[in-house]
This record gives sequence, structure tokens and C-alpha cells, in this order.
Amino acid sequence: MRTGVWLVGARGSVAVTSIVGAVALRAGLTEPVGCVTEHPRLRSDALPGYGDLVFGGHDVVNTALVKRAEALAAAGVVPARLVAALHSELSAVDDDVRQMPPGDTAEAVAARLCADIDTFRQKHALDRVVVVNVASTEPAIVAQSAHESLTELRRAMALPDFALPASSVAAYAAFSAGCAYVDFTPSTGARLPALHELATANRLPYAGHDGKTGETLVKSVLAPMFAMRRLQATSWSGINLLGGGDGATLAEPAANAAKSASKQRVLGETLGYVPDGNTRIEYVPGLGDFKTAWDLVTFNGFLGTAMRMEFTWHGCDSALAAPLVLDLARLTAAAHRNGRVGPLPELAFFFKDPLGATDHGLAAQFDTLAEFTASLT
Amino acid sequence: MRTGVWLVGARGSVAVTSIVGAVALRAGLTEPVGCVTEHPRLRSDALPGYGDLVFGGHDVVNTALVKRAEALAAAGVVPARLVAALHSELSAVDDDVRQMPPGDTAEAVAARLCADIDTFRQKHALDRVVVVNVASTEPAIVAQSAHESLTELRRAMALPDFALPASSVAAYAAFSAGCAYVDFTPSTGARLPALHELATANRLPYAGHDGKTGETLVKSVLAPMFAMRRLQATSWSGINLLGGGDGATLAEPAANAAKSASKQRVLGETLGYVPDGNTRIEYVPGLGDFKTAWDLVTFNGFLGTAMRMEFTWHGCDSALAAPLVLDLARLTAAAHRNGRVGPLPELAFFFKDPLGATDHGLAAQFDTLAEFTASLT
Amino acid sequence: MRTGVWLVGARGSVAVTSIVGAVALRAGLTEPVGCVTEHPRLRSDALPGYGDLVFGGHDVVNTALVKRAEALAAAGVVPARLVAALHSELSAVDDDVRQMPPGDTAEAVAARLCADIDTFRQKHALDRVVVVNVASTEPAIVAQSAHESLTELRRAMALPDFALPASSVAAYAAFSAGCAYVDFTPSTGARLPALHELATANRLPYAGHDGKTGETLVKSVLAPMFAMRRLQATSWSGINLLGGGDGATLAEPAANAAKSASKQRVLGETLGYVPDGNTRIEYVPGLGDFKTAWDLVTFNGFLGTAMRMEFTWHGCDSALAAPLVLDLARLTAAAHRNGRVGPLPELAFFFKDPLGATDHGLAAQFDTLAEFTASLT
Amino acid sequence: MRTGVWLVGARGSVAVTSIVGAVALRAGLTEPVGCVTEHPRLRSDALPGYGDLVFGGHDVVNTALVKRAEALAAAGVVPARLVAALHSELSAVDDDVRQMPPGDTAEAVAARLCADIDTFRQKHALDRVVVVNVASTEPAIVAQSAHESLTELRRAMALPDFALPASSVAAYAAFSAGCAYVDFTPSTGARLPALHELATANRLPYAGHDGKTGETLVKSVLAPMFAMRRLQATSWSGINLLGGGDGATLAEPAANAAKSASKQRVLGETLGYVPDGNTRIEYVPGLGDFKTAWDLVTFNGFLGTAMRMEFTWHGCDSALAAPLVLDLARLTAAAHRNGRVGPLPELAFFFKDPLGATDHGLAAQFDTLAEFTASLT
Repeated sequence: MRTGVWLVGARGSVAVTSIVGAVALRAGLTEPVGCVTEHPRLRSDALPGYGDLVFGGHDVVNTALVKRAEALAAAGVVPARLVAALHSELSAVDDDVRQMPPGDTAEAVAARLCADIDTFRQKHALDRVVVVNVASTEPAIVAQSAHESLTELRRAMALPDFALPASSVAAYAAFSAGCAYVDFTPSTGARLPALHELATANRLPYAGHDGKTGETLVKSVLAPMFAMRRLQATSWSGINLLGGGDGATLAEPAANAAKSASKQRVLGETLGYVPDGNTRIEYVPGLGDFKTAWDLVTFNGFLGTAMRMEFTWHGCDSALAAPLVLDLARLTAAAHRNGRVGPLPELAFFFKDPLGATDHGLAAQFDTLAEFTASLT
Repeated sequence: MRTGVWLVGARGSVAVTSIVGAVALRAGLTEPVGCVTEHPRLRSDALPGYGDLVFGGHDVVNTALVKRAEALAAAGVVPARLVAALHSELSAVDDDVRQMPPGDTAEAVAARLCADIDTFRQKHALDRVVVVNVASTEPAIVAQSAHESLTELRRAMALPDFALPASSVAAYAAFSAGCAYVDFTPSTGARLPALHELATANRLPYAGHDGKTGETLVKSVLAPMFAMRRLQATSWSGINLLGGGDGATLAEPAANAAKSASKQRVLGETLGYVPDGNTRIEYVPGLGDFKTAWDLVTFNGFLGTAMRMEFTWHGCDSALAAPLVLDLARLTAAAHRNGRVGPLPELAFFFKDPLGATDHGLAAQFDTLAEFTASLT
Repeated sequence: MRTGVWLVGARGSVAVTSIVGAVALRAGLTEPVGCVTEHPRLRSDALPGYGDLVFGGHDVVNTALVKRAEALAAAGVVPARLVAALHSELSAVDDDVRQMPPGDTAEAVAARLCADIDTFRQKHALDRVVVVNVASTEPAIVAQSAHESLTELRRAMALPDFALPASSVAAYAAFSAGCAYVDFTPSTGARLPALHELATANRLPYAGHDGKTGETLVKSVLAPMFAMRRLQATSWSGINLLGGGDGATLAEPAANAAKSASKQRVLGETLGYVPDGNTRIEYVPGLGDFKTAWDLVTFNGFLGTAMRMEFTWHGCDSALAAPLVLDLARLTAAAHRNGRVGPLPELAFFFKDPLGATDHGLAAQFDTLAEFTASLT
Repeated sequence: MRTGVWLVGARGSVAVTSIVGAVALRAGLTEPVGCVTEHPRLRSDALPGYGDLVFGGHDVVNTALVKRAEALAAAGVVPARLVAALHSELSAVDDDVRQMPPGDTAEAVAARLCADIDTFRQKHALDRVVVVNVASTEPAIVAQSAHESLTELRRAMALPDFALPASSVAAYAAFSAGCAYVDFTPSTGARLPALHELATANRLPYAGHDGKTGETLVKSVLAPMFAMRRLQATSWSGINLLGGGDGATLAEPAANAAKSASKQRVLGETLGYVPDGNTRIEYVPGLGDFKTAWDLVTFNGFLGTAMRMEFTWHGCDSALAAPLVLDLARLTAAAHRNGRVGPLPELAFFFKDPLGATDHGLAAQFDTLAEFTASLT
């Protein structure tokens, strides 16, 4: 069950933390803290082992993985001792990280991506490859008729002026190369009817989107609490301060809007109504790779008594995301092997804006995930 | 299905808020916000309606309910307009609140309590009565051989120097009078083998204990979140600042210890290990009837990265507890009618330290509660 | 020393709370909590007494003051018992609140305002009147040549298409009527060279601007703490959630920008550098008349160790502002009587963006204020 | 102006961080962040330079300083690169750290301490030595008649069963050796009439006590804010969670009481009344060398409106204390050189419970400190 994990954005913080962690797990130098698939209810022989995962990917930059890992160590994201101990393993992965190819058309770029993935699969004699998008968040897109069917999409991709988001080009390439696809970001990725058509035609599963790493994770247990107790949230406001690379991207109004909408969705769908308030994202370079989120919930109890709760979450997104990337690679590879096709709503536990699922309560999502994992052979 | 609700501590804040609320609901002057049995998954015709509930009880003080309700209105716990509108209804309930009787022996006191409950039942032609303890928290007790069997307990209760906690005397009286019993406090109540024997002999159900109104409620969703995500809590510390009547009681070291242990239990049982840290209770009169709890959780993620979360909960205990008292009265009465005998672990959702239940995750407790409610006829 | 207080925005929350409070103080029904001029170092016979203050003003709406006060009581801003007890006093003030006059030119409007103030002064035989702007925040304005001199301004005010902010029209009218002027908002008000010329010509003092009621007040003591301790703030970010009438106004991007800039200024000027981060203002109707601000400060200590502090401020702006309005009226009236002309930088203690003052440390501002008050006769 | 800094508790976290920092400053490897004497208003040629400070001291343990520094680096308190770069300098200091001597009587111990300090002074040809106590906090003591005069104290110290706190033995030894003494802890130290007599006789200054590093620092600016604004604090409660070595000591009820009293004092003396509430100290090993404090202040504004503020302070005590130790050594040495005798109330800025000073407002304390520093030659 040798499984390739092809990371789009392979030199980004999430990807590098995932690679360092997987290599350290294989070497027995760390414990799988934060890996959901280690939960007693989820452990399964149907999933490839950490030692079976082989990493490669694309990126627009080409700084060596070791340099990127050292930068993360300096920022307190990964332990310096691990990076020092794993130099040669990280350099080996470096050989499988390709520069994101240029091309005159989306078709040409996709063909290059597809060829890179194929080369990777053959070189390592992999049973299958899961493509995981951990690149920077893209702005939300405008729907176009070319997105509606595979025929139309292919016609458009051959034209030099057709703009398809990089995440969707990556999904197209993944499906064309016979790979499952996971979108860990809020970008468009596989969420176009044409791409669903391609995945279905090639009998491939896909999952997403937008990894639930911090504030939304907390919301996904607090909102059900208010709902179960019939307490009426009169407002729910939040702010996310983040300093990492993604912060600068998300501070762009368009990306910010995409991410914020994804973050508030859990409230409306869990509570049955949308309380006043917004979720803001602010880029604060001084915070480095850590993120601080603060939420205020005001609510009414019996006889209208006004009450309130606040929480602050201070976390490192890369350290929270990386074990989930490993979980998703293992689960999606197993789903592929089990013949699952199309979206995987059973993986909603991992996502802020899960495909095809409507229950945003974390506990219910966990039950679904456990049943799903148990069904895999 | 006319159902009596006999409150031990009937002039305390929780009891008075419950009575004002029930009377207001009957009069159509308020909505059942905070009533769990209003959740779509829990609504059931098997439960007595709010209008079917008739209130009475015991207390050591005898301030008129209207006076107590006005004091709560001044403190912002209940709306002044409701108290003003419900004067006569509250006065009517006052007729059914008896002074806690004196007596030379526990046996004598219990007999008086039992007689009061009987009189109440007959006066109002009630199908059944649920006794709910909402009196002040008692210190934890030392186990005695007299607690072990009904025969021994009865022998001891006849002796003038045998000290049985008031909550257990109340449970004894309730069971003797053929009533179900609910303990909303962390006091001993029905949790003695001898009392279990009595409940079983008289074919009665009981539930408890220690209503989950604030910080522990939040813990019961956050601890499962850390567990499901395999994040390792290195410490979990909390402080509860409260100014109400119960604050002074809980500040007593013995009661404090009882309550704190009950509050940390959820962590060990949910996480599978006990993180460093304690839960403190402080009496701060200046806070009035509101309570502020603050918790700090430090945790490790992937590769040992240290992270943290804090929350502040600012609530009014009486407003949070009162709708649960109505829920528990309705559910326990229905359980009694359905022939349930002994502890009701299905009501774990409501309690910090539930009888006979070990899953402290709120979502799982809710599922259990929903199934239980659906099974009632 | 009978002193008029002419409020621009006289039916707004701040104004009504100020009026209710002053009338209650006169009637001996409350204590001057939150009145800075009650501090032992500031008490002075040179200031008019609360009983000497007579209220009037302009507003665009004409809801009765009693109605407005009742609404504030329902929202928890003022005690209902005070409003009930002071009906006739509030009605008496109502007679002196005029509808904001229409007019084809700024000149015409100013003439009407001026006449209203004159009538008020004569009716009550007042020694002097202080005009205080507590109307909604206006957007920041673009500088124009007509603002530069009184001659040019007067020429422009006669033209129908010349747009002068309402706060500046009010300042013009105040100065024309021989009154001191205080701007409690971040609006332009008296801050135009032409209006300074008018104040100086008429021998009048003025003060402002933007009352320091919440988050900025806290910043004005915390920023000096970091500066005195030579701790290096790497980021300082804040969010203000507010639900009152001003919230909707401030959520407008232009007004938001004006207010936010005013709020961050204290940092740069106190620390000597500007840390990363912004101050956001969000309108959250569900919060009612209360405001919650949250700030995160990250800082480095010795040898670069990273540390952090957060604070949450939950306050009622009207209750915080009203006593300062009384303080400012008393102090500015006394300054006028003492022959002070032009801006009063000694009142910097009260303002986020004080006129002519650069020390934003609260303790230093208080010392300056105490010396100023002691100098008044 | 070569100045010795003799640290009691020289292998503790505060001492080691101070030594690493001073050595790094001398080597030009770091900036004096957190050093108050670097403030433009405090810079003075009358103070010895960082390069003039020579370190030595006593401790009960004898782990090498380099080992202790490496442990602090692993805990994130000091940068690993500094420790690596300063190995030889730290080893050199190690030669001047003596084991705390045993002795049958306090007199014998003091004589040994005194001799060690003398040797240190001569070895390094120091102009003067400042003894600074940074050892673990001791329990509060019971007053004894032997504390009242130097004659009585000396008589008692010769008896084998007379228990004098280690901090007072150290102060006795310091004064006997002709050294100024600073108490950075809440221990008794020089605060005995007999020791004051000795300091005065030997013409020596002393300062203390209890360095103001975290929560109390914040209180010392917030309490004056409430006082200046005449806002009425109805409660002020705090909790300090700390995991370092001192945490275990402070969790002992007696030491806890000493420290807590010192922490609440600032409130009573600044506000003029003591609000409800306490300050708790909890030992939470999982927090390591960092400390998290949370405070809740509830307050009333105009017309009794209830409001609240909270703050969380997350700091590293050693990193906060170390630069102050350097400041105090420099200032006290200069005071000694300038002929100052007895307590130095002008150093109140640095302490929770300052000797002979009553103004607990940080800004006033800073002004006093600046004047004092300017007066030194």
C-alpha cells in the first residue's frame, strides 16, 4: 500500500510541517499527536501506515525544504532537533518537488502537472497518489458556463485567455492522472460541475474543503452546545489575527470574504438562525506563524436574561493542519482503494465548509467519520 | 397528567426563578428559552405540559415568594414586569411552601416532610409528584455503616444523635411518599445504598446530580473536542467567581472540595488522562447573582508545538438552572409514569456528576437523552 | 455662576444620560460616580456646581426626552426609578431642546442656531453657555481653502452649495453667540483655522476632541506601562463591537477610519514607534447600548522572550461619557470665566485626540489637569 | 566603578537569566530590552555600565550555570544561541558561585557568607558589591523581640535554636560585609528593625521588596485609571497560574498568603477602598517557566451602571525580572556611592510592596525614580 502524497504548495508552512512530521514519525522520533486517525475509534488497518507515505509536489518557489524547515524551527513551529536529525530525508523529498510549470494555456499547464505526478508515481512504484492542495487561498471566483461540463471546460482550457484558478487546474491534473484530490484550502479546487464529471468518469474520490484548524473548530462544538441547551445567541463576533504567509493573502478583501463566509456558515447551519456579528481576518506580521482568534458570544437565557461568553484561541496553524493532512491522505487513499467515487461527505469532520454535508456539529461529524473508517477494508 | 414539583429550598434563587418562569409560561408571558425539552429532537407528548406543573416545597426561611422574586428582579435575574404581572399566581404558590419542619430525629423530620408532600398531592389531586432538591450545597459526608442498608438506616434515623444530611432526609421522605427524586445539587441526596433500596422497593426513579449550568457545560464540549482531535491538554485550570447565596456556601472548604471534584471529573473521563490544574470556586459578593468563570487550557499539537485557549463564561446560574429544573421535573415524572425504577443515567446531559453514566461528552449525552425521551409513552 | 450647557445632539444617548444624571445629582438622588472633577485633587470652587447647570440643545429628532430616557432605562443604561422620579424635570428641559433648523446656506443655519442659543441664555439669565457636541460622528473631511480664514469661510457659508460639517456649523454658531465649545466626538467641529480665528477674535476657549471612554482609556495607561518598562510591543490589535446608534454610524468606512486613526494615535505617540496591528470598529446590533472591546498586545522582553497580554472592556459608552460631559462643561465654563482663549490642551485627559497636547499618558494628563484646575479662580 | 552583584539564589531562573543577559550585553550580543535604566529619562553616567558588573553568589544547589542556562534555553526563556556563544563566560562566573554554607548558628552562617563576599570583592578588585536576593520565597514570619534591636539579634543569632529566615541572614551578612542589599522577593530580608539598625550603622542603603513583574505591574496602572476616572471598582479578583520552581513554593499556603497580600495592597492604597475579591496563586507544573494571570474587575459608572474589564497576562517571570535585577544593581550601587543610607523608597517603581513608599501608581513612581536618578552623581 505505498501511497504518494502530492502536495500543491509543497514548500509552504503546512506542507513542510506535514513532511517533517511524517518523516519524523517514520523514524520513530515523534508521536502522532494531533492525528485524528490515531483515535481508538478510528484506528484501522485499511489505512496506509505513516511509513507507506511518499511525498512530492509542486510549488512556485524553490527554496530547499531543509531551509524552509529551519525557518519553521526558528519560528517555533517544528523542533530544531528534528530538522537537524532529518536533513538527508528532507533532501530526498526535495528531489520530488517540482517547480510549478508555466504554460500558455490551462490545458498545457495541466498536462505538465499530470506528467510530473505520473513520473513521481512510476519512480516510487506507488499504488496510488493523493493530491492535496495546501497552497495559498485564492479569491472566490465568478461562475462561468465553461465550468458546467467537462466538454466545455476542456474547450475553454485550450484558449490562452481562459482563467481557471490554479487549484482547479491542479484538481483537473489530479483527476486526469487518476489521483484522488483533497482541498485543504477554501479555494475553488474540485468544486466545479465539470471537475465532478471528470472525477466520476475516472472513478475517483475527492474531499474538502478548508481545513478546520482553529476558531471554527471551537465554534463547531460551542454552537451545538447553545443549540442543544436552547440558549439563544444574540450575537457571535470573531476576529482572527494572523501573521503567517497566508495572513497576507487572506487580508486581501476577496480572499477574506471567502474565508469569513466559510467561518460563519457553521453558525447558521447549527443554530438554525444567524446571530448578529461577523468573523474578521486581520494580517498582523508581528504575530509570526501563530494565530490568535477571539470570539464573543452574547446569549439570552430563561426569561431573557442576558449572558456572554468569550474565548481566545492561540494556535499554530501549520502544527494544527499538518497532522490532518496526513489523516486526509490516509483516509482518501483508502477510500480510493475501496472504490469510492465523487465527494466524500464523511470527511466533514476535517473541514470548515464540507462537501455535501450539512451537520456542522463536531461530535456528529466524528461519529460519521468513525463509521466510515470502520467500513473501509 | 397533573404533576407536582416539590422544591426543597423553595425560596432560593433557582426555585423562585423556576416558579416565576413556569407561571409565566403558563400565562403565555414568556418563551421557553433554555428549556432543553423544547428541542425538536426532544419534544414529546409523553411529558407533562408546563401548564400541568403545580409547585410547592419546603424552605428554612419564610420570606414571601413575591418578595424573593422582586429581589431577583432588582438583581437582573428575572424581568420586573413579569413579577409585577404574576403577583397573585406567586402568592397562590406561597400557600404550598412549608417551613422546613424541626424534629428530634431524622425519622421524625422525614415523617413531617412526607406528610407535607402528601397533603400537597391530595389538595391538588396530582397524578404524581417529583421532589427536586435545589437547596444549598452541603459538605461531602463520611461513609457510615448505617448508610448501607435500609434496615440499618431506619434504625439509625430513630436515634437523636444520628446526623443524616438534609438532602438525604428529603430523598427518604420523597421515596416514602411515593415520589421520584431529583438532585440538582452536589449534595448526597439519594446516593446512599439504603436509599437506593428504598427507591427500588417503592418502584421509583431518581436522577442527579449537580446541574451542569456553566463552566462544566462548556468543558463537556471542549474536552471531547481535544479528545477527538488527539490534542494533548498539558494543563486545564479554572476559577469560578460567584456572588450569590450559593457562593458563600461553596467558599466553605468542604463544600468547595465537593464541587471542584465534580467539576474536574469530566476532564479525566473524557480525555483519558487528567491534565495539571484545578478548578477553584471563590465567593465575591460584589458579583451579585452572576457568575464569571475563566478557564485556561494549554495543549500540545503535532511535534509538540505549545498552544493555548482561554474562555470566560459570564452567566446567571439561576437563569441557567431554572429551565433545567422544569425539564427534569417533566422528564422524571414521565419516567415514573413509564415504570422506570432506580437511577436514570439517561439524564446525564443535565448533570456535572451523573448517576451511573460515564460518557461526559455533551453530544453523546444528548443523543442518549433524545433516545430516552422518544421511548417514553 | 448659572451656566448653560447647550448640547448638539440633545436627544442622543450621551446627552440624555448627561441630563438625567445632572438632574438626579441636583435632586440628591445619585452620587457623582465617574465625575473626574470630584477627585480630591480636582475639586474646586471655581467650577459651577451641578445645581448651577441648565440644559438645552438642538437635535434632528424630536422624541420627548422622557421617552428617550425610558428607552435608556429599558436598555439598562439609566435606572428606571430615576427616570420615573424625574419626569417633570426632564419635561422642563424638553422645552429648551430645539429642532435642528433647516436653511439654504450654512450661514442661515448658523444664524438660526445662534439665535436659539441666545434665547436660551436670556430666558434662564445665564452667566455663560458652553456648547457641547455629542451628535453622531461625521466622516473625515477634505481640506478646502475656505477653511483657512474667517473671511473666506464667511464668504463660502453664504453660498448654497458649500458643504460645512454640521459640527463646524455648530462651532461657528457657538463662537458667534459668545459661547465656549467642546467637541466630544471625532468630528471636525472647531478644528478649522477659520474657526480658531473666530474663537480668538471673540475671546473664547474651546476643547476636544473625541471623548476617551473605553478601549483608548485603557490604552492610555497600558502604553505608558510598556514604555516605562522598556518592553517592546511587537503588535497591538483591537476590535470594538458596539450596538448602539453610534455603532451604525461608525461602521461606515469613512467614519470608521476617522475613529480608528484617533484610537491608534495614542500608541505611536506614547511608545515612540507604531507596533503592527489595527483597531477595528464593528456594528453588532445585538449588543445594544453596551460595547465590548478586545485588545491583544504581543511584546518582547529581555533577550527577546515573546509574551502577550489581552484585555476585554465591557462598558456602556453613554454611562462613561455622561459624567465627562458634566466635567467638561464645568471646566470649560470656568476657563471661559478665567479669560482663557483658544484651545485648552490642559483638558487632554478627557480626549482620544486632544487639541494641542502630545503626552498621551493618562497619569501625566491628570497631573496637567489638576494643575490647570488649581489655577482657576 | 567595577561593581559586584552577589546573587542569593545564584543558580535560580531569575539569577541565571540575569547573568546570561548581562554577559550577552557585555559581548554586544543582545539589546537591553526591558531595562528601565535605558529609558531616556533614566539614562545616567552615574550608574555603573553593564560591562562593569561582575557576578557571583550563593546557592543551595550546585548544578553548573551552563547546565541551568541550557535548561532555560530548552524552556524558551533564553535563546539557545546565546547560551552556546557564552559558554566560557558562564563558566567563569561559576567559579564565583559558592555553595550556601551550613552552620550551627545563624551567626556562624552569616560569618561564612560574609567571608565569601569579601573574597569575591578582593578577587575582582570591586569598588562595591550589591547583594540581591532572588532565592525562593519564604513563608511570612512571626515577629520576635530578638528582631527589635541589633544587640538582641546578635545575642539570639549565637544560639543554635534561633530561627532567622535565610533572607535575613543574607541581609545581615551583606550589611556586615559593607554591601548594599536588595530584596527582589517578598521574603523578610532586611525588614527587621535590628537589620535597619545595622544598615544605618554601616552607612548602607537597601531596597525592596518583591519585584513587580506581571499582574501587579498591570494593576499599578489600571487601579490609578479607575481612581482618576472616579469609577467604582465593586470587585477585583485575580488568579496567577505558574509552573516554575517558585510556583511550587508559592503554592504553600503560608508563602501564598504573603505573596497575595502583597499583590492586593496596591488596590487598597491606590483606590482608597478595598474592592471584594482576592488574588490566588496556583502551581500548575504543565505551564513551565511561564505564568498566566487573569484578573476580573467589575465596576460601577455613572448612575450605577455595571461594567467589567478582564485582562490576561502571559509572561515569563525570569525574562521580566532579570533586566530589573540589573537595573536595581546599577541604581543601588550608585546610591551607595552617593552616600545614601537606609531604605530607598525612590525605587518603589520596581516593587510590589515598596519600602517606605505609599504611592502605588506606576506613573508617579516613575517620576520619582527619574528624579532620583537625575540626582545621582
